[in-house]
Amino acid sequence: MPEEMQQALIERGDDKGRCRPLEVCMSEFDTQVVGILGTGDFSRSLARRLVASGYRVVVGSRTPKHAVALFPEEAEVTSQLEAASQADVVFVAIFPEHHATLLELKTALAGKILVDVSNSSQIKRAGPSHAERLADMFPESFIVKGLNTISAWVLQTGSRDGSRQVFLCSDSSKAKSTVLAMCRRMGFCPVDMGLLSSSREIENLPFYLFPSWGTPILITLILFIFFYLYNFVRDVVHPLVKAKKSVFYKMPIETVNVTLPSVALVMLALVYMPGLLAALVQLRRGTKYDRFPNWLDKWLTKRKQFGLCSFLCAAMHAIYSLCLPMRQSARFRLLNDAFKQVKEGVEDAWSDEGVWRMELYVSVGIIALGLLSLLAITSLPSVADNINWREFSFIQSTLGYCTLSMATVHTLLFGWDRAFDPSQYRFLLPPTFMVVLILPVSVLLVRLILLLPCIAQQLRQIRRGWERSRHIRFILPNDDRVTGFDNVSHV
Amino acid sequence: MPEEMQQALIERGDDKGRCRPLEVCMSEFDTQVVGILGTGDFSRSLARRLVASGYRVVVGSRTPKHAVALFPEEAEVTSQLEAASQADVVFVAIFPEHHATLLELKTALAGKILVDVSNSSQIKRAGPSHAERLADMFPESFIVKGLNTISAWVLQTGSRDGSRQVFLCSDSSKAKSTVLAMCRRMGFCPVDMGLLSSSREIENLPFYLFPSWGTPILITLILFIFFYLYNFVRDVVHPLVKAKKSVFYKMPIETVNVTLPSVALVMLALVYMPGLLAALVQLRRGTKYDRFPNWLDKWLTKRKQFGLCSFLCAAMHAIYSLCLPMRQSARFRLLNDAFKQVKEGVEDAWSDEGVWRMELYVSVGIIALGLLSLLAITSLPSVADNINWREFSFIQSTLGYCTLSMATVHTLLFGWDRAFDPSQYRFLLPPTFMVVLILPVSVLLVRLILLLPCIAQQLRQIRRGWERSRHIRFILPNDDRVTGFDNVSHV
Amino acid sequence: MPEEMQQALIERGDDKGRCRPLEVCMSEFDTQVVGILGTGDFSRSLARRLVASGYRVVVGSRTPKHAVALFPEEAEVTSQLEAASQADVVFVAIFPEHHATLLELKTALAGKILVDVSNSSQIKRAGPSHAERLADMFPESFIVKGLNTISAWVLQTGSRDGSRQVFLCSDSSKAKSTVLAMCRRMGFCPVDMGLLSSSREIENLPFYLFPSWGTPILITLILFIFFYLYNFVRDVVHPLVKAKKSVFYKMPIETVNVTLPSVALVMLALVYMPGLLAALVQLRRGTKYDRFPNWLDKWLTKRKQFGLCSFLCAAMHAIYSLCLPMRQSARFRLLNDAFKQVKEGVEDAWSDEGVWRMELYVSVGIIALGLLSLLAITSLPSVADNINWREFSFIQSTLGYCTLSMATVHTLLFGWDRAFDPSQYRFLLPPTFMVVLILPVSVLLVRLILLLPCIAQQLRQIRRGWERSRHIRFILPNDDRVTGFDNVSHV
Repeated sequence: MPEEMQQALIERGDDKGRCRPLEVCMSEFDTQVVGILGTGDFSRSLARRLVASGYRVVVGSRTPKHAVALFPEEAEVTSQLEAASQADVVFVAIFPEHHATLLELKTALAGKILVDVSNSSQIKRAGPSHAERLADMFPESFIVKGLNTISAWVLQTGSRDGSRQVFLCSDSSKAKSTVLAMCRRMGFCPVDMGLLSSSREIENLPFYLFPSWGTPILITLILFIFFYLYNFVRDVVHPLVKAKKSVFYKMPIETVNVTLPSVALVMLALVYMPGLLAALVQLRRGTKYDRFPNWLDKWLTKRKQFGLCSFLCAAMHAIYSLCLPMRQSARFRLLNDAFKQVKEGVEDAWSDEGVWRMELYVSVGIIALGLLSLLAITSLPSVADNINWREFSFIQSTLGYCTLSMATVHTLLFGWDRAFDPSQYRFLLPPTFMVVLILPVSVLLVRLILLLPCIAQQLRQIRRGWERSRHIRFILPNDDRVTGFDNVSHV
Repeated sequence: MPEEMQQALIERGDDKGRCRPLEVCMSEFDTQVVGILGTGDFSRSLARRLVASGYRVVVGSRTPKHAVALFPEEAEVTSQLEAASQADVVFVAIFPEHHATLLELKTALAGKILVDVSNSSQIKRAGPSHAERLADMFPESFIVKGLNTISAWVLQTGSRDGSRQVFLCSDSSKAKSTVLAMCRRMGFCPVDMGLLSSSREIENLPFYLFPSWGTPILITLILFIFFYLYNFVRDVVHPLVKAKKSVFYKMPIETVNVTLPSVALVMLALVYMPGLLAALVQLRRGTKYDRFPNWLDKWLTKRKQFGLCSFLCAAMHAIYSLCLPMRQSARFRLLNDAFKQVKEGVEDAWSDEGVWRMELYVSVGIIALGLLSLLAITSLPSVADNINWREFSFIQSTLGYCTLSMATVHTLLFGWDRAFDPSQYRFLLPPTFMVVLILPVSVLLVRLILLLPCIAQQLRQIRRGWERSRHIRFILPNDDRVTGFDNVSHV
Repeated sequence: MPEEMQQALIERGDDKGRCRPLEVCMSEFDTQVVGILGTGDFSRSLARRLVASGYRVVVGSRTPKHAVALFPEEAEVTSQLEAASQADVVFVAIFPEHHATLLELKTALAGKILVDVSNSSQIKRAGPSHAERLADMFPESFIVKGLNTISAWVLQTGSRDGSRQVFLCSDSSKAKSTVLAMCRRMGFCPVDMGLLSSSREIENLPFYLFPSWGTPILITLILFIFFYLYNFVRDVVHPLVKAKKSVFYKMPIETVNVTLPSVALVMLALVYMPGLLAALVQLRRGTKYDRFPNWLDKWLTKRKQFGLCSFLCAAMHAIYSLCLPMRQSARFRLLNDAFKQVKEGVEDAWSDEGVWRMELYVSVGIIALGLLSLLAITSLPSVADNINWREFSFIQSTLGYCTLSMATVHTLLFGWDRAFDPSQYRFLLPPTFMVVLILPVSVLLVRLILLLPCIAQQLRQIRRGWERSRHIRFILPNDDRVTGFDNVSHV
């Protein structure tokens, strides 16, 4: 280490606490001076964090004399102009409404990196973002948007609980790189979100409430309401109308328990449908390089959410089913049956068909639930991170279709011969299981057709990059993550 | 690359294996020489890891001739003095009792970074840590504490199983930065723990056994024992005393199954109580900048653990309940009931009230358990890392209060009209569910009061930083993580 | 920043989008030029990713005029020779069959880092890897193998779903460091796999299908088939032969439900057996520094998988058991029993022994399952990452042996006095539970013996590094992760 550098470090004396005569200098960051404009909660927490991460911090305030008490003593509190001049990277931690007050620093900020950490007070669907407005005000600075999703509290404590992801975007890749490295050094996990045009999205991030779950939950609810009403009419209204028998007590458990598996199976079929549609589209177009219709693209990215909704319904169905024999109603019906059996003098009520039907569909149902649980577990981020493409594809495709088949067989065994029993067509409505089976059976059939050698062969070629009409375009999303493997093409 | 550098690399020849005439030099780390004092298991594993990560390693031993065979051939084994002189960063991998033997290297170690990796043989509650003693011995070196939580075995294999977190602290932020970067390069996830005064805590880390779980588990156990005895007296002792009927067989399952939901509900109420207390404290003080009493602070940070204990009890309660109809005792009681019904000639034992009560409370109970499971899943670190503040607050607050309400309704439906039935007051003890409901009902009531517009408005202002008596202080922990959003204040 | 550098940046003008007069230069990466040879899917995605991460990219194509349209405009598309000459790091993204066509660039590539991203079309058990062949062709370049497990699609989108792990190996640690840093900057999590001899393994990675699960699942299946047949003979064939009674309906549920807990308990015993064997080996050899036999080593690393298989079987057993009372067959048997009871005029069928046996074994079974669930949850990567060695050892060892004991007691209580009932020895086969108990009881006994003070003391000494015959060797895998704590030895 050159002597004058050591001297400079000693003079600067930015290491407090125990007295140290010398300062070792090995890191490449040393000379980086970071400015912060603003003295609010966020500014103070950021200053502490930066100081703790070894940066030299200069805070710019309009009233430095008042503000100095608020900041860690390692940070220098000075005028805005002074802070802007000294620093290489300047965090703009003031309300976006007041960004314009910084215009007087324009010259001092020229050529500097400005990090806009501001948040909106509400979601914004159109118009320029705060960061884009800042970029217009300071065309000679390099604007980076980010850190707005981090709270002052997390900044200060580095809490291990909350998310440590920090989203960044900028039109200048160098400025972005610098801030990425700073975030990493502060202990965050920066995520590069591309150009500054993403800043509106980043500013909207704190307002999102499970955006990828909206559609799947909505569809689950619609299906639930539809099947609940269907079963309500068949199981509660029908006996009321036909036999004047009030069985409203079925509403909280029994009707729900017929509805849940219906929703679960249809949702599971909806997980595998977009993949098949994508394959059909690719076969028709003869290329994988054409973008899918927008709705299909969105659907493809939401298969995990559809699957988890299906799993939730299936798990609830299992618990509801297991609760059935525990209920008073089951007990009363059993006691009454015993009374009847004794009265009628039937020594053995055993019915082999009834026994076999139930043993089989319960057994298949348990296996289907077990498989579905495996699918759900591998959806956990930490598990998914530890498996390779082939394993992912095995679980989500092979195991997934096994699960769908098992669930379909479970439903068929439950239905048994009821499809051919006219008394099951109450109010002319077919039994619920028949309505439910339409989609999964179609999905399984199309899947089987796509496995026919001639079609499978063509599809494989297309996914390897072959095109019916040769012209190469950029890679676009496709449903076959396995194509990831043939990732090297000829020169 | 300058020629003399290439030459130096060739001469140094630290790249074994295939013979390579030249060495490319692009990384900024190249010249970093790392020393290790000590030749034990840890030292050897560290040497291998450092070599594999591309560092030049110099090991200092008292008997270099004997030690040389123990180290990878890429590492240079020499005298302690030689190692201390050459290296920029020196790992001190000798027993802390022998730290004093290093005093002869004082001059050579001046200005160097010393990393103390030692562990204690037992937990230490007071007095200076090993690292602090080392700092007193070598005032001209820069002491960093860390890596002690990593085992020699993990160091050598980089096992993907165990934790890769490495805790570091130092009074010199530059020294800390250097070691942070080294850890990152060795494949660990370094966590900055602040100043060297944290070293005692870091040295105690390997002795901790779920420190954040102590209080919650203790409270769960106390509640369990209390409610178990309460139910034992009511359900087992009472029939024994009053009717000379021995029902001790209820102890392993039935009494446990009444105890578990009681514990679960009280624990769930204890999750939401500290948040309400914090709000009340803030309302009374008129500011969010005052530190909460210590017990409240601790309680606030342990809500997750309280919630998971509650979930565990609720899940066990569900399994116990599902097991009820499977037991021999249930079978015998059913058979005896059937016998009685036949004897008494009751054709239909159906009781609409009994049926409705049970259908409802089972149904609500399942929903409460489902919601509680969602809360538990979002507590998994990998899931929690992928959600933003608003989602976190939605799940933990909105969904959490839904769960608490559902569980309360489940208990109320279970109680039905028993609170007004004198025969339920055995030994003058009120039914268990009444004792259980005190806390959750109070919590829900206070929550409702805080939602009143006038109070909610004042609370919102306080959490935005408004103070009844204006004087700004540093941010302190508060229960409202949502305040994270308004993280930008005016200059 | 020196003026000529600014000038260079302005002239280079690699920042598109908004017009910016100047470019700030603070990052250490600036001057790094990355070359890509090849123009396929992977090449194009890699180019986009590199550009987005702030690198200057030069693509080498045989037909640069055609290829230029395929790449982002920030990337320079030129001849292969030109790209090879300009770049410091060159990605070789062409089919491995065509590697030889690059020999004409040998001089230009000398001293450069070549990253081989190629994949095989099938798994390769012997012979040199593609990367090793490349290293033979270009002895003056520095070959790094890696990135082949990442798909073009992930490269382009940086999908948060899939794994972001990138495996790298190289004989040159400096070249590897450079590529490690590049991968980190592109947002991947690079994993250092050591020397280039690991490249065959890396090339085989995409073909692995849960390699660590093969043996555990195989053993689970073998045990399942064995116990299923054993129970089938005892429970189905025996009544058919002896009493001409057909009870085939037991096959889907009842026989499975006796088989599953047997497999679960034996698998759980197999989790703790290798640890005991390792202790015995260490005791006999008097050292921990000798390598265990290969099979024991492998077994030790697969304990987690054995444990999870055991948990899966136990959980399925729980669900099957809970389904028992719901079945038609259970209903029919109950009704027939009621009929019999009435016929025989037995007012109270209660049998205290039967009741106690079942209450106890159900209760213990639930506790065993609860403990096993805790073990399973702490196996989740994200949970395991957050616990220290002592906690890990507490859970996996203390809690694990508790679980094994509980499960053994559950089985003993299930067995009750049946071992002494001659009618249980159908076809001379002992009851299943007796066969099952052999292994867990042996494991628990050996564990108790190892806890005897004299033996425990010796084992502790050995694990601290003491050796009966003194000669120190390198650390080898051992089963006691707790030894990680005494990680500092004397100099």
